[in-house]
Amino acid sequence: MTRADAAGRLPSRIAFLGFGLIGGSIAAAVRSAGGRGSRMVAWTPAGVGPAEGVRRGFLDEAASSAAVALDAAELVVLAGPPLAIVATLAEASASLRAAAAAGATITDVGSTKRRIIDSAAAEGLPFVGGHPMAGRETTGAASAIADLFVDRPWVIVPGADAQAADVERVEALARATGARPVRLGPDEHDAAVAAISHLPLVVAAALVESVAERGRDWSLARSLAATGWSDMTRLANGDPEMGAGILSTNAPAVLARLRAMRDALDGWIERLERDAADPELRGRLESVRRSLLDETRE
Amino acid sequence: MTRADAAGRLPSRIAFLGFGLIGGSIAAAVRSAGGRGSRMVAWTPAGVGPAEGVRRGFLDEAASSAAVALDAAELVVLAGPPLAIVATLAEASASLRAAAAAGATITDVGSTKRRIIDSAAAEGLPFVGGHPMAGRETTGAASAIADLFVDRPWVIVPGADAQAADVERVEALARATGARPVRLGPDEHDAAVAAISHLPLVVAAALVESVAERGRDWSLARSLAATGWSDMTRLANGDPEMGAGILSTNAPAVLARLRAMRDALDGWIERLERDAADPELRGRLESVRRSLLDETRE
Repeated sequence: MTRADAAGRLPSRIAFLGFGLIGGSIAAAVRSAGGRGSRMVAWTPAGVGPAEGVRRGFLDEAASSAAVALDAAELVVLAGPPLAIVATLAEASASLRAAAAAGATITDVGSTKRRIIDSAAAEGLPFVGGHPMAGRETTGAASAIADLFVDRPWVIVPGADAQAADVERVEALARATGARPVRLGPDEHDAAVAAISHLPLVVAAALVESVAERGRDWSLARSLAATGWSDMTRLANGDPEMGAGILSTNAPAVLARLRAMRDALDGWIERLERDAADPELRGRLESVRRSLLDETRE
Repeated sequence: MTRADAAGRLPSRIAFLGFGLIGGSIAAAVRSAGGRGSRMVAWTPAGVGPAEGVRRGFLDEAASSAAVALDAAELVVLAGPPLAIVATLAEASASLRAAAAAGATITDVGSTKRRIIDSAAAEGLPFVGGHPMAGRETTGAASAIADLFVDRPWVIVPGADAQAADVERVEALARATGARPVRLGPDEHDAAVAAISHLPLVVAAALVESVAERGRDWSLARSLAATGWSDMTRLANGDPEMGAGILSTNAPAVLARLRAMRDALDGWIERLERDAADPELRGRLESVRRSLLDETRE
């Protein structure tokens, strides 16, 4: 299915609750795929993102309230940070249930899935969780770009009350942005992103905390820092609200990974304490490099 | 002083022992700065790098032995990995002393300085340690580029037996490549790079070890990995020989940093175990982000 075909299958009204980088980029992608048949409307508490979307021409309407946005919507995208999604599922539950009763499908773009899926199930909503695996360093609808999701995986996690037509709608949305839908269970998803995304976030933060102290030593070190340091700390520069929401909604999986990371670090500490000239140090680095090469190859 | 001025002050013969990415890029940079007055000659055990340098036109001669390379050299650049530099200082000590007696200055490009400075001092050489703070993901003289050092710091660590003229020669070399010479003591340098370069290397390796296991879970996680994961593991893809040499020659400073990193990680684990919904999680991420912003601003 081409992006244009997928955009053509989208319902006539799509509502976004939350409209930052991800929501904005979805709307921009649908527009660029030719989804002119779908009217897109967004609401956020402050209204900044929707206003930007209208100004840039990829959003039809900035709604004055969540209820106005949801009115007659056939596809609802909860596009705030994870904790905002959980809060919206509770706070806007009456409007969401009304939209669902009129045939709407509810989806989201949150970085964690178990907690959100359970919240949606508690409301009995036809919910299909989503997680487009793409991002940028900047935040907000002002940073939205139409090709953010091209060739990226978009995890689809059908909720208990979702029907096949609901899943198809959300997969059409993913395809319209150029992404590849990948169906997973919520726990499977949360364990995977704990490993490749949430653990790296905490590691980046801990690295900054352990090194970046004010004072002469840090000023000097910082002045020598090159791309390696920037690469390793970039994730810690992300939105703190988003980061805290991710950790709080995926704590068990992140904790399991953090403990494994601590064990690996302890292994390095013990080895360097025992014998820093140990020829096996090189072997250990070679083995790490092989894991990364396998990754690229397979 | 312009790069061309600096290149004009370089001695008439420069010898490289070791000639990979860094040595090759120095030669390429000197050539592009107009250093036509300096004849550059290199030797490595396998001869691959020097042959590549001659082929690409930024090296005048691939020497058949270290002694041939050193003959009549006025500036000697030890450009292998850290442990190779230490070994060369011992194994080629007679030739290096002969070159020094004829007026040569000895420098290096190693990532650690205390161990190398002490090895040079043990031989009584007019040694000025150097560490150009630049690199690429690829290795070898085939990856050499002339602008690798432009606007980057180049740490200069004068040894006990170096005279002012020796330091000036090495600073001229740094300036000819477009780098900014920064004078530091060996321990000051080693502590700084442990923080911003060597700790991140071990952290990247430990991250790969704690996550990348063969099997279904890892295949799935890997398929979802985005730029965050690549950024956090890139350093672990570097040359294992170089990495092992760095860790073995800078173990005390790296160990101090690794212990601080483990403490920071333990802090995250304790906090998430206690209360994953703790509103202070967001504050902690905000504080980390502020450290990084300060870094960019100051």
